[in-house]
Order: sequence, then structure tokens, then C-alpha cells
Amino acid sequence: MSRPYGFPMRDAYHEELDALTDRLVEMTRLVRSAISRATTALLDSDLQLAESVISQDEEVNRIYKEIETSIYDLMARQQPVAVDLRMVITALRMGSDLERMGDLAEHVAKITRLRHPDSAIPPEIRSTILEMGQIAERLVTKAGSCVASRDVEAAMELEQDDDEMDRLHRRLFRVLLAKDSTYGVEQAIDVTLIGRYYERYADHAVRVARDVVYLVTGSHPQDLA
Amino acid sequence: MSRPYGFPMRDAYHEELDALTDRLVEMTRLVRSAISRATTALLDSDLQLAESVISQDEEVNRIYKEIETSIYDLMARQQPVAVDLRMVITALRMGSDLERMGDLAEHVAKITRLRHPDSAIPPEIRSTILEMGQIAERLVTKAGSCVASRDVEAAMELEQDDDEMDRLHRRLFRVLLAKDSTYGVEQAIDVTLIGRYYERYADHAVRVARDVVYLVTGSHPQDLA
Repeated sequence: MSRPYGFPMRDAYHEELDALTDRLVEMTRLVRSAISRATTALLDSDLQLAESVISQDEEVNRIYKEIETSIYDLMARQQPVAVDLRMVITALRMGSDLERMGDLAEHVAKITRLRHPDSAIPPEIRSTILEMGQIAERLVTKAGSCVASRDVEAAMELEQDDDEMDRLHRRLFRVLLAKDSTYGVEQAIDVTLIGRYYERYADHAVRVARDVVYLVTGSHPQDLA
Repeated sequence: MSRPYGFPMRDAYHEELDALTDRLVEMTRLVRSAISRATTALLDSDLQLAESVISQDEEVNRIYKEIETSIYDLMARQQPVAVDLRMVITALRMGSDLERMGDLAEHVAKITRLRHPDSAIPPEIRSTILEMGQIAERLVTKAGSCVASRDVEAAMELEQDDDEMDRLHRRLFRVLLAKDSTYGVEQAIDVTLIGRYYERYADHAVRVARDVVYLVTGSHPQDLA
């Protein structure tokens, strides 16, 4: 790790760069909590929990906006080079991905709210959604520790979890389209959108991890593989 | 316009930066053609046209990869500051958005291929999809001229076209869910995904335009409004 977090002799400029890491890790915690609560709210038709996901997405957006502002400000005052410049560029991208993950958790919560007190999820699909939620949480947790530790090997492992998400996503469609299924159009729309939100959430977590690889190595993950 | 394109006295460094604009504009042309052909292929169940969209997405990905490589290379050799640094940062982001727009056009084409020789689009929904395709084209065309001209006012106009896309997206669901509708689960899935792809395509075009605003002014569009 080239910039040990909290090292006591940092100057103000490098403290600002370190603070970016802090905020990104905070974003991963918030969007992890968001997808976790969104999944529970969806499976339990819990309106109050869904509302909490929706209202708390503002906090994620606020931090992202702060990251952007501090980066633009920092670039106007300093001339970041080498790893510092990569930090600035990847922080912007990771922030953007994490902000989007918050939106996707919010989208899941909004479907829960729309269908309340009914459930948007037919019984046969519950276990798949539960698994998708667990993988989403695992991915964002791993992405968060990669951002904090700058562990390149761990970052490169996220692709496998994402394959698992894609497998579950395909399973959703198979269940919906099974010959003996009796789903209506509304259920089909809800499950299609929800599946897509989890799948995209996972993709963005993988992108965050890829940016950790670029940050540390200066190379793309695909060029290292 | 702070850096007139093709101005004869440019040094190699600034020529490289100008070349980024060139490639981004080329990407807008390619993803415009992709969504245009994807829409026609979808409405006409034209397998060959759908295949052309799918195979030509490689070209979009290749240019994005080139943009990334030349930016990382440029950052390793130079220390871009002020508007040059904004160019580097926005080029990365715009490239990423445009690459995603290519993927979304490809997703539309893949649904066409999956359902061929049947159509994924029920007759009552054709006109809405046609309109969504037209708005997508209008948005990317405008985004492309904003990137080329760095016209901030034009860039800020894209939000309205995006509102129109959102209106059409909501209309899709209304048609699907109409009381007398007889759609099956497969049709509901296809139309839901296709609607989502157009809506996201438009969102990414708006993000490109927003980055033009930031590139030229150093401020976010929302801070200027």
C-alpha cells in the first residue's frame, strides 16, 4: 500500500486525498446497508423499511457530490500526478458507480412501496431474490475492503461473484417463463426490473474493484490477467 | 471555445487532447447508428440488421479502450492542468457513457435476435418504441454536436428530451398493464427490458452533455441552472 491510511506525517494535500478513500468506503457501507434493507423490505413487503432505503439515498448522493466538489476543488489548487492523479480519477469513477448502486437499491425499494401491502415477488422466486441480495452484499463488502486496503488480488476475485449473480439472473427468467407458470404481466414486469437492478448493482461493484486495480497498478485488470 | 479544433499551432500534447474529442465524436456517431439500426431491426424483426449491431459494438469498445489507453499514457507523460485536466477527466467519463450506450443498443438487438422470426414488440407498442428510438437518436446527435462544439447552452437543453423519453417509458407500462391487454409473460419481459434500455441510453446521453458543461465551465450544470 503506497499511502498508509492515517500515517501521521501527511501534508494537507495528501490528507485530502486520503479523505477521498474514507468517503468512498463510507459510500460502500451505505449502499451495502441500502441493498440489504431493500432486499428484506422486498421479501417481507415491509413498507417502512422500503421508505428508509428511499429517504436515505439522499445521504449517498450527498457524499458523492462532496467527493466531486472536493476533487474539482483539489484539481483547481493542486496538480496531482502519478498515483495521486489516479486516485483522483478513480475516486470520481468509483463514487459514480457507488452512487448508482444506491439508486438501484432505491429502485428495488420503490417497487416494494408500489406493490405494498402485496408482494412484488411470487413465492417460487423468493429464494433466488434472497441469494441475489446476498451476493450483492458480498460484492459491495468486498469492494469496500478493496478500496480501504488497496488489495489487488482481492479486487480481481470479484468477477467470480459477479458470474454467480448472472447465473441467478438467468434463473429468474427461467422460472418466469416455465411452461406451467401462471404469472401475470405485472409480476413479470416487477421481477424483470428487480432482477435487472440486482444484476446492475453487481456490475457496478465489479467496476469499483477494477478501479482499485488500476489505482494501485496503473494497469487495467484485463491487462494483468 | 477555448481550444479551436484544428488550430494550426498546436503542440503534440494538445493535438493528443484534441484527438480525444475526435474519437468521442466518432463514438457518438457509432452509437447513434447502433441505436438507429437496433430500433429498425426490432420493429422489422430484421435478423441481419440486428446481427450487424451486435458485431459492430466491438468497434465502439475498441475506441473506448483506445481513449482510455491514450489518457493513461498521456497522464503518465504529462501533467495536465486546468481545462486540459478537465478534458482528460471528462473524456474518460464520456467515453464510458458512450461505451455503455453501445452496449444498450446491442442489448436491444439481442432481444430481436432471440425472438426472430417473431417480433418482440406487440403491434400496440410499436409507435411508442419508434418514438423512443427517435428520441434516443436525437439525444445522441445533440450530445455529439455538444462534444464537438463545446456548446454549453445546447448541452443544457438535453434534459428536456430526456423528460420526453421518461414519459414514453411510463406509457409503455401503461399499455402493458391496460385492463384489456392480453400480453404474455415473455412479451412483458421483452418490452420491460427494451423500455429500460432506451431509457438508460437517454440517461447516458444526458450525462455526456453534462460533462461538456463541466468541461467548458468547470461547474456542474445543476450549479449553473
